[in-house]
Amino acid sequence: MSDTPDSAVQTVRKYIGQHRAAFLDDLTEWLRIPSVSARPENAPDVRRSAEWLAAQLARTGFPIAEVWETDGAPAVYAEWPSADPDAPTVLVYGHHDVQPAAREDGWHTDPFEPVVRDGRLYARGAADDKGQVFFHTLGVRAHLDLTGRTTPAVHLKLLVEGEEESGSTHFRALVEERADRLAADAVIVSDTGMWSETTPTVCTGMRGLADCEIELYGPDQDIHSGSFGGAVPNPATVAARLVAALHDEDERVTVPGFYDGVAELTDTERALIAELPFDEAAWLATARSHGTLGEAGHSTLERVWARPTAEVNGIGGGYQGPGGKTIIPSSARLKLSFRLVAGQDPDRIERSVRDWVAARVPDGVRHEITFGAATRPCLTPLDHPALRAVARSMSRAFDGAKIRYTREGGSGPAADLQDVLAAPVLFLGISVPSDGWHAPNEKVELDLLLKGVEATAHLWGELAAALR
Amino acid sequence: MSDTPDSAVQTVRKYIGQHRAAFLDDLTEWLRIPSVSARPENAPDVRRSAEWLAAQLARTGFPIAEVWETDGAPAVYAEWPSADPDAPTVLVYGHHDVQPAAREDGWHTDPFEPVVRDGRLYARGAADDKGQVFFHTLGVRAHLDLTGRTTPAVHLKLLVEGEEESGSTHFRALVEERADRLAADAVIVSDTGMWSETTPTVCTGMRGLADCEIELYGPDQDIHSGSFGGAVPNPATVAARLVAALHDEDERVTVPGFYDGVAELTDTERALIAELPFDEAAWLATARSHGTLGEAGHSTLERVWARPTAEVNGIGGGYQGPGGKTIIPSSARLKLSFRLVAGQDPDRIERSVRDWVAARVPDGVRHEITFGAATRPCLTPLDHPALRAVARSMSRAFDGAKIRYTREGGSGPAADLQDVLAAPVLFLGISVPSDGWHAPNEKVELDLLLKGVEATAHLWGELAAALR
Repeated sequence: MSDTPDSAVQTVRKYIGQHRAAFLDDLTEWLRIPSVSARPENAPDVRRSAEWLAAQLARTGFPIAEVWETDGAPAVYAEWPSADPDAPTVLVYGHHDVQPAAREDGWHTDPFEPVVRDGRLYARGAADDKGQVFFHTLGVRAHLDLTGRTTPAVHLKLLVEGEEESGSTHFRALVEERADRLAADAVIVSDTGMWSETTPTVCTGMRGLADCEIELYGPDQDIHSGSFGGAVPNPATVAARLVAALHDEDERVTVPGFYDGVAELTDTERALIAELPFDEAAWLATARSHGTLGEAGHSTLERVWARPTAEVNGIGGGYQGPGGKTIIPSSARLKLSFRLVAGQDPDRIERSVRDWVAARVPDGVRHEITFGAATRPCLTPLDHPALRAVARSMSRAFDGAKIRYTREGGSGPAADLQDVLAAPVLFLGISVPSDGWHAPNEKVELDLLLKGVEATAHLWGELAAALR
Repeated sequence: MSDTPDSAVQTVRKYIGQHRAAFLDDLTEWLRIPSVSARPENAPDVRRSAEWLAAQLARTGFPIAEVWETDGAPAVYAEWPSADPDAPTVLVYGHHDVQPAAREDGWHTDPFEPVVRDGRLYARGAADDKGQVFFHTLGVRAHLDLTGRTTPAVHLKLLVEGEEESGSTHFRALVEERADRLAADAVIVSDTGMWSETTPTVCTGMRGLADCEIELYGPDQDIHSGSFGGAVPNPATVAARLVAALHDEDERVTVPGFYDGVAELTDTERALIAELPFDEAAWLATARSHGTLGEAGHSTLERVWARPTAEVNGIGGGYQGPGGKTIIPSSARLKLSFRLVAGQDPDRIERSVRDWVAARVPDGVRHEITFGAATRPCLTPLDHPALRAVARSMSRAFDGAKIRYTREGGSGPAADLQDVLAAPVLFLGISVPSDGWHAPNEKVELDLLLKGVEATAHLWGELAAALR
């Protein structure tokens, strides 16, 4: 700890350089295991992946490395206590399962036979998420080398689930069941990315999610639109009116109370978002969309990162085959989802939506509304000491670059950790949008992968100081 | 023609009484032919039905009785010229095909083995439409007997199509192709019914129909509602907003120009409709609906008979399977239909709807709109001499009862006859709502069937006078 920052950076880089080849060999071995959680026929591979990782973590030096069973795919848990009894506890989250992939989907090489080309490692899971889990194995050793310690500066825990790509179905139950062992002062999620290769960033939060299904029942059967049309309520019309009424002219959600408690962006946060080199045309190309539309008074990035939404994911009713059929449909259905931001309470949103729907369905139409399990939003304030520690570690890895802040518009199991463990959630990821998550030819930039190692080599000391 | 009305009624009834048994035997023979036009395997039966009817019409005395080929099922045409060269020409329309029927659908007896129970003849087609075509065979002979003529008082033509129950696909082409031979001063449609057993009525018109399909294209594929939700247009939302915007708070259609030219109900027409013994609870039970909803300022009957509508027959977009899927759908689609009333022009409606949709689809969403072939509305004014002739004939058959007026909310090939032949369309039917069209245990009330014979026995003389 007597090193100046500059020499610390040099020390870490030297250590990584010495172990780079073995690190990549090991990762390659792991990437060869097709741990596709969504395909039942790959269940043995998912298990093999868990067992391989637990063994690898043990070799890394974790005194505790276990495979944890769930009612679905197994997770991996590892723990490396600090010799310092006052050290804070940090839990790293990642996942070892991957999306399906097949050569014929457009892969240039076998998705489960990793290859390095032009400084990139191509394989399913290279970025999402095996590569980003794996940088922690070399990172913690670099941390020990840097600090001369035999145990980390924090009580280090890892939880690597096996069902993230198939909905994290049993994750919440696992976390609740094992809450005592998972207890932590902070959670580090390594399953996100950065703005771009040239703009290193730290993610500060994710949106939450509440979703529901609404069934609308009109006549007891499809009826003739000539004999009855114009005189009885049409459930497809009712469904459409609900969707249309969800937003006002400013594309703000109209459900009463929807915005109650919303953590509005501060001027600083808006300025930081506006500073990012955002190219709307490129973003639209990524979205495969042909135009933008959203809440008035907010930029596209603000809309997807920091504003709650109401979206129709599916609508159906009546005849959908070829040609026409002159009926008033018997029923219609809607699937709605609401992305939530910090300050919104999914339970209150559910009540508000239920009341709002009930008030809008006319006499003669019956409705049923079912909510799924909600995911809470999470957001770590920009001035949180742990977030500043993460940013400092990233900055060191990126040669002192200014670290900017992003958010994730999506929702994830990070929120379960935040909820159950009552710990702040931080994000440390080095993947970039071009990595092709869930797409053919997924890759990770080797330089960035090693930046991940570097950042974590600095992180545990930074966090030990920040959380003390 | 020297008979007083009363003795005319007696004469007709006597004649019918003498021929009743043979008439029912013949009808029974025809009903045994399962002329189900929607089932390809019944195509030979539909042809047999046409040939049987042509032969029967020849036996009845029609000097011309032909099977007319179409690109689909054959129609039957018959003609009985009047010896009076100045006689007007009347074309009767009906159909000889029937809806599918199977014993296991809930029929108490074989649908194609007619039985008489409690004064009712049960068989598929008994009311829709073989029974109502068939009363014309005895009717014209009763007319000759009554008047002592050897040819009818009008040039009598019959066109009995074979595809009504499968969409009258080739009917318009047939009518256009044979327009010269079908030319008429008036059309009598015998394919509708009366208000009830105790309330004899004459239908005065049908609504028209324009329908379209709208495809809405958003992102090039389904996209993640977390990553992009709130910032790009959702085609399912656009579809829903179109449907919701179709009506205002009074349930009036908002498409500009939609009501242009609409023949508003006169005070007399409204009063006549209000006089009908309408039981809304019973009507709702028939509709299988649990409430009424429609254009403000109009009763239920006015809404279905005399007001134009915009109805969504189908809507679909995004995920419709079990559970949720957090996507912004790539596309959505709508099937809309518009019932039209007299004074509305389908071509103008199509243009208005196209403009209205185009103006409402936001940037970033592309749309395609396709209209089907429209059916024009038809309506015969209450003071039309031919309508009064029909009503007088019905009144004679019903012992001098006051004949009331109904309309049909549906749309039918009658409008093609009106369009192509430029002739007023009149309706003469004796079926009642309990007859169970398209349902198991279809029947016709024998008393009413013979009232149909009776009415036509008087009709040709009445029409000859009215149209001269």
